[in-house]
Amino acid sequence: MSRPNPEDQPVGRYAYDGLDRVLHEKARLGILTSLATHTEGVVFGDLKSLCSLTDGNLSRHLQILQEAGLVEVLKGTNGNRPQTLCQLTKLGRQKFLEYIHVLEAVVADAAVVSRTKTAPARRPSSGWSPA
Amino acid sequence: MSRPNPEDQPVGRYAYDGLDRVLHEKARLGILTSLATHTEGVVFGDLKSLCSLTDGNLSRHLQILQEAGLVEVLKGTNGNRPQTLCQLTKLGRQKFLEYIHVLEAVVADAAVVSRTKTAPARRPSSGWSPA
Repeated sequence: MSRPNPEDQPVGRYAYDGLDRVLHEKARLGILTSLATHTEGVVFGDLKSLCSLTDGNLSRHLQILQEAGLVEVLKGTNGNRPQTLCQLTKLGRQKFLEYIHVLEAVVADAAVVSRTKTAPARRPSSGWSPA
Repeated sequence: MSRPNPEDQPVGRYAYDGLDRVLHEKARLGILTSLATHTEGVVFGDLKSLCSLTDGNLSRHLQILQEAGLVEVLKGTNGNRPQTLCQLTKLGRQKFLEYIHVLEAVVADAAVVSRTKTAPARRPSSGWSPA
């Protein structure tokens, strides 16, 4: 297999600009995927459990997602019990899909590595010493 | 298509514990993918350009990756010019592949969303008001 030469590759080839930090953060990525797969929304307690987050952490991340316009939080009741429903906004859904396309590109870039799973890292020819 | 019910899904279904923060950070993910696809290593200047990073940022992220044992940094010369070569370690390669498997799981989870691209977010039945 021919190895790509770094000098032949465009500037920013691995910059992954589309990995917006608001969506890329691990907990928020879990929240967004959870909401994206439940179009009627997820109540706070279920979301906490699905994402293994504490009340405080989930609230903090939901606030960041709300401020970015990606998620909306609705108040209601179940019987007499107050409940909080979290939903992806239209913008949230669009940004999430765009983000996932970039993740797919990362996975595609990495597929080259998976195919050469058994190959050990090659030592550079000579003249190199640990920094 | 039947919609998954959050209550039927296991705790931590979307926690994505395998998204190790050392590897998941956007710039470091770019550095690792770049090094993983160039098994002989990439010299500092090329890596900077491939990842669109400044000298300072690249140095800082390389140090974090070195401290985690994922990357090694070697010093050498090209003619009389000092050069720095960055390489993935064996552990780095292994952790990178494990991380990519989790990314693949995220993309697979999100595929449900892509398939229903045209469906608008469903409004909850009634009794909900903005928080």
